[in-house]
Amino acid sequence: MSKKNLIAGQSGGPTAAINSSLYGVVSEALKHTEEIDHVYGMVNGIEGFLNGTVLDFQEALPGEQLRALTWTPGAYLGSCRYKLPESLEDPVYPKLFRKFEEMNIGWFFYIGGNDSMDTVSKLSRYAEKIGSDIRILGEPKTIDNDLVNTDHTPGFGSAARYVASTVREITLDACVYEKKSATIIEIMGRHAGWLTGAAALARKYVGDNPLLIYLPETDFDVEEFLQKVHAAFEKNCNVVVCVSEGIHDKDGTFICEYDSAAGTDAFGHKMLAGCGKYLENLVRSRLGVKARSVELNVSQRCSAAMLSGTDQQEGILAGEFGVQAALNGETGKMIAFKRQSDSPYSMKCTLEDVNVICNEEKTVPVEWITEDGSDVTEDFIRYARPLIQGTVNVPVGEDGLPAFVYRK
Amino acid sequence: MSKKNLIAGQSGGPTAAINSSLYGVVSEALKHTEEIDHVYGMVNGIEGFLNGTVLDFQEALPGEQLRALTWTPGAYLGSCRYKLPESLEDPVYPKLFRKFEEMNIGWFFYIGGNDSMDTVSKLSRYAEKIGSDIRILGEPKTIDNDLVNTDHTPGFGSAARYVASTVREITLDACVYEKKSATIIEIMGRHAGWLTGAAALARKYVGDNPLLIYLPETDFDVEEFLQKVHAAFEKNCNVVVCVSEGIHDKDGTFICEYDSAAGTDAFGHKMLAGCGKYLENLVRSRLGVKARSVELNVSQRCSAAMLSGTDQQEGILAGEFGVQAALNGETGKMIAFKRQSDSPYSMKCTLEDVNVICNEEKTVPVEWITEDGSDVTEDFIRYARPLIQGTVNVPVGEDGLPAFVYRK
Repeated sequence: MSKKNLIAGQSGGPTAAINSSLYGVVSEALKHTEEIDHVYGMVNGIEGFLNGTVLDFQEALPGEQLRALTWTPGAYLGSCRYKLPESLEDPVYPKLFRKFEEMNIGWFFYIGGNDSMDTVSKLSRYAEKIGSDIRILGEPKTIDNDLVNTDHTPGFGSAARYVASTVREITLDACVYEKKSATIIEIMGRHAGWLTGAAALARKYVGDNPLLIYLPETDFDVEEFLQKVHAAFEKNCNVVVCVSEGIHDKDGTFICEYDSAAGTDAFGHKMLAGCGKYLENLVRSRLGVKARSVELNVSQRCSAAMLSGTDQQEGILAGEFGVQAALNGETGKMIAFKRQSDSPYSMKCTLEDVNVICNEEKTVPVEWITEDGSDVTEDFIRYARPLIQGTVNVPVGEDGLPAFVYRK
Repeated sequence: MSKKNLIAGQSGGPTAAINSSLYGVVSEALKHTEEIDHVYGMVNGIEGFLNGTVLDFQEALPGEQLRALTWTPGAYLGSCRYKLPESLEDPVYPKLFRKFEEMNIGWFFYIGGNDSMDTVSKLSRYAEKIGSDIRILGEPKTIDNDLVNTDHTPGFGSAARYVASTVREITLDACVYEKKSATIIEIMGRHAGWLTGAAALARKYVGDNPLLIYLPETDFDVEEFLQKVHAAFEKNCNVVVCVSEGIHDKDGTFICEYDSAAGTDAFGHKMLAGCGKYLENLVRSRLGVKARSVELNVSQRCSAAMLSGTDQQEGILAGEFGVQAALNGETGKMIAFKRQSDSPYSMKCTLEDVNVICNEEKTVPVEWITEDGSDVTEDFIRYARPLIQGTVNVPVGEDGLPAFVYRK
């Protein structure tokens, strides 16, 4: 049997663990020298591949340099937000497969979220249609944890650990003065509240901050919120509240859009400052207390400081498992995680039909949110706690900062 | 000689290293059992002390528990923003010194910035006036690094390391797409640009992001800024810009106030969303590129994830040195750092007159800012680099998160 080449790409928003999955794919592929010749990377995903930007991992990251991927956030290969056409009759498909043939590609890996799985779905269906034997697999990643048919996704654990530890630190900061204060922390997640729920892990004892947690899975009522904050001040001097960026009222209007009419910049554009900023102003005005808001922003998905060891290892594992599956002839699948036990935590890798995954979104089960919609339950915590375990000691360079690897 | 008690307090905004200074004071004091009986802490600074809230460190943090202060951000003792009256004839002074006498206080330590040094100044002058032999010393802390007569202050190194590593991570995140984008990072510092300048440490190679850095020491011109960003796009696809929250135009108007007229919330209050948000909108509108802004916010002063080992050790050292100085009879002084060498870095502790320090503010020298005002020079980097060296491995608890210590 003549050898073929493997190619991997990354797509969608970066995470702290997406390069660990890439490491898993590349390092495993490099072991199978009898079957796999070159291991290539698409620079800037399928869009970059169409433009001919490809690298060879043995040249780009020879020997031990490859390992640095496991603690480097971002997306080493660069990313894209390119959606393949719905119709498999589109000329882009034969163009792509001609390129695959020119490069003698036998295995294609795409690391990403829903949209990336959509790419895997379309390419694998087209391959089947034309009788191509290229094996096409998806590696999951998203901090949003919103992919179905998998217990969780690589990237979520590190983002959750970042959120939990940062909320704990902000709570320490918020509680230094003996003066009533409200702190609103805005956390990523438009439709799924997994990451915001992880803020509950920050509590050091029962009754600790954050006292209120609002997910986008339930409707947000501004007046009820104010009553809750007011009530929280009866027992606490400093109240920390965590909210998803995507909280909305019962009509579906995002809270961050509430005062967009008033807030326009000098150019007449809406100044959407986020729901945290809105609630900060609301609390200050209506409750007469000191208030501030903190938007955790992109560090949630790109901080290596709070990498979860579990997340990192599972990212690598998913990559390795994927290559083994591809060599066994699997295609049109996403590598998924099946939890076997919460405590001690254990999971195993499985394969799931990518066509199902790319069209659905997994939100937090309503049973895992308290009835009044202002907190998550113990079930949520039991689910999330194992995923943030393990510290990764990121190597530090002579400059005193994390020694990340980057494309030259 | 009969034994006396030592009391320490914290004041002003928290930092990642303020508890290291407290640890230095308390651990050193506990060694001098022939002279020092109890080591007390004022809860919520001088204001809390006036209300009688005091703890005994041997009860609160016995044995090895004390050590946890060195990796716990915030302010273990709580803080206050209480300014003592200018007139030493005010009745609060005899009241305070009566309390000192009741508690048999022989040594008083206050850890904080300019305002805290003002407290040390007033108390030591009052002590002299009434012939009290209580020794009153100040321990410096501020992330702003704006105290005079000291090379730098504890708290700055860790905040600078947080800024540099976070800017490096955000840069990785910002550069994944092959599509023009501008990222504006807003960094703390109303009057002094030390922390914003530290963003320059993030560069991995010459010409790396952040491409532009603006400090409040120079006047900011919006049109010049737009020209610079526009020019940066000629060579770079993704442009990262760092700005101090306090950047202002030549008339002294803060940039964050520019569109306050347009941005009012539903209650008619000004929606000051920060200069980063303003510049984000400006760049998007005027240059037609994708733009976003990130406000690093309170994590700059409360993140333990990027504690500088140098900063932590110097905080402890300043605490220890202060106790030794107090036992030698020193009073009305602040512990300061004198740099002896940049490379290899070395410094020693000195004592400086607190009356001078409390009334001045140290900004970044103009010679350390490039002529066009859009970057810092090599001199700045030579100064700042040693202060961010050293990694601190914060112990992790069973919950998977940093094991901080807090007042019960």
